[in-house]
Amino acid sequence: MSAPRSLGVVGLGLIGGSIARRAVAQGVRVHAWNPSTDVLDAAAAHGIEPAGSIAELCERGPDVLVLATPLRAMAQVVAEVAARLLPGTVLTDVGSVKGPISELVAAAGVAGQFVGAHPMAGTERSGYAAADPGLLEAARWALAVEPTTAPEHLVRIVALVTDVLGGVVLPVDPEVHDEAVALVSHLPHVVATELLNLVGRSRVRSLALNLAAGSFRDGTRVGGTNPRRTEAMVAENPWLVPALRLAVRDLERLADELEETGAAPAFFDQATAVADPASRRTTPDAEPGSVPLEGAWREALVAAGLRGALVTGVSADGTALLTAG
Amino acid sequence: MSAPRSLGVVGLGLIGGSIARRAVAQGVRVHAWNPSTDVLDAAAAHGIEPAGSIAELCERGPDVLVLATPLRAMAQVVAEVAARLLPGTVLTDVGSVKGPISELVAAAGVAGQFVGAHPMAGTERSGYAAADPGLLEAARWALAVEPTTAPEHLVRIVALVTDVLGGVVLPVDPEVHDEAVALVSHLPHVVATELLNLVGRSRVRSLALNLAAGSFRDGTRVGGTNPRRTEAMVAENPWLVPALRLAVRDLERLADELEETGAAPAFFDQATAVADPASRRTTPDAEPGSVPLEGAWREALVAAGLRGALVTGVSADGTALLTAG
Repeated sequence: MSAPRSLGVVGLGLIGGSIARRAVAQGVRVHAWNPSTDVLDAAAAHGIEPAGSIAELCERGPDVLVLATPLRAMAQVVAEVAARLLPGTVLTDVGSVKGPISELVAAAGVAGQFVGAHPMAGTERSGYAAADPGLLEAARWALAVEPTTAPEHLVRIVALVTDVLGGVVLPVDPEVHDEAVALVSHLPHVVATELLNLVGRSRVRSLALNLAAGSFRDGTRVGGTNPRRTEAMVAENPWLVPALRLAVRDLERLADELEETGAAPAFFDQATAVADPASRRTTPDAEPGSVPLEGAWREALVAAGLRGALVTGVSADGTALLTAG
Repeated sequence: MSAPRSLGVVGLGLIGGSIARRAVAQGVRVHAWNPSTDVLDAAAAHGIEPAGSIAELCERGPDVLVLATPLRAMAQVVAEVAARLLPGTVLTDVGSVKGPISELVAAAGVAGQFVGAHPMAGTERSGYAAADPGLLEAARWALAVEPTTAPEHLVRIVALVTDVLGGVVLPVDPEVHDEAVALVSHLPHVVATELLNLVGRSRVRSLALNLAAGSFRDGTRVGGTNPRRTEAMVAENPWLVPALRLAVRDLERLADELEETGAAPAFFDQATAVADPASRRTTPDAEPGSVPLEGAWREALVAAGLRGALVTGVSADGTALLTAG
């Protein structure tokens, strides 16, 4: 599997900057564009070659072009890129939703060159100054597998993730991805924000903050994220509102049960099945193996991902290598 | 301020065991009773003197007797202790609710010897094997200040916390304490449990757990607590259901707003006021100072605690020394 030798990055924020710096450290030639020239100057000092515009970046013909712009800027950026993308470049992104971005890319007519991605890494910090090649160490990357996905393009992005960036791949259907991250990322951001909001409005706020220990600090850490970034992430995911309504229903039932009976054993017992970190990733139904990238390979890869399998690479004869998650 | 020279501990779990071991390390004579004799044997190896019963522990007349039993056992233990408590012993506890325990103690007729306490420390582990003198390092202890609280008893417990156990004190009204911990501890436990429940029930569970990164791990850490302990803590706090209903109302409004407008700026902006850890404990209205333990000292101490002040000790002339939180 031949890894990309050149990379273009649109947007040098926390994730784009971390990708660019890690790729430079791996000997990949990295070009980048960012709206702020101060950031491009800082990046140049790290060996990243600045481009004067998105058009210029596209025309340099990198093996892979990564869209690492904020979600709210994505429609505009996809349109600009689609107008200049060279046929030899594979397009990818790092957005925290996959369905809406696939729709944008399809509408712009470049779905045939696109493999959507979402690295499960981040901090509550943002911007190039917070970029860190170590942020992506062993990161899990969701890669969207769609009817339009060409196997050779998927192979190139898998090679970028596993060989250059040191991560592993979860093959996903874009809609299933969005449903899953609503549960494990977007809803946790929303409830962390709500915990902060309730304390902030409370008449016992100063005392409460003085009493706050580990459970509050950990439960609200992501509430410290830039509120515009969190809002965009949440608002763009069509699966968030349904997940939020499930949580509202469960919590309302819990309040009723506690009021009526003074206990709620089933609510607290349920969680133990997934609460043990050691057991979380033991998915006995995820048999390790391999999937040759031919025939019904898309369905086979997506099914393996749903069972909890990870892709660690693609062999020279074009077979995706799987491991249990 | 003279620190207690002998301590009795009822219940050698995570908190009781950590208190006992820290006090032994500070040269205090520590007696303890625990339902399991295996635990008493292990504690004896750490210099803790076993008592054969709660009655025997009381009759040894420790300067302070700490009730560190689970909340569900508290009514029984308080009754047993009340029958044998010597007049020279000050009674305290470490329960995560303060109003209901004050009521139990008053009903048992020993309110005049009692100063309720709640150390804001813990882990998702439990039992004597997890006890660790370091767990209480610099811990914040809520101490209940009530109309029945004798100043010399408060002084003795402040000395235990600050001189022996290395903590600081937040003076609180028991009801206000329970309202505050509902927001910063009990509700965070409930939402962590609900986040785990939603994933555990999901048809995309294996994939979702594979995609889970920092926000989910941190947001659900306390969901790994023993479910019976969490349930008892939540069910015993009369302020939890009202806080839960506020959260339900806010989250339902958020779902409506996202559905109707695709945005919710006010929801996400609110949190920034308390989200910055560096700013959380800056309470400009909490002037450092001191409160002599005479006249309306109870009201003055509780008001200082509400403004965010901490008590770091009591001077030789009986004045509580305050600092900003």
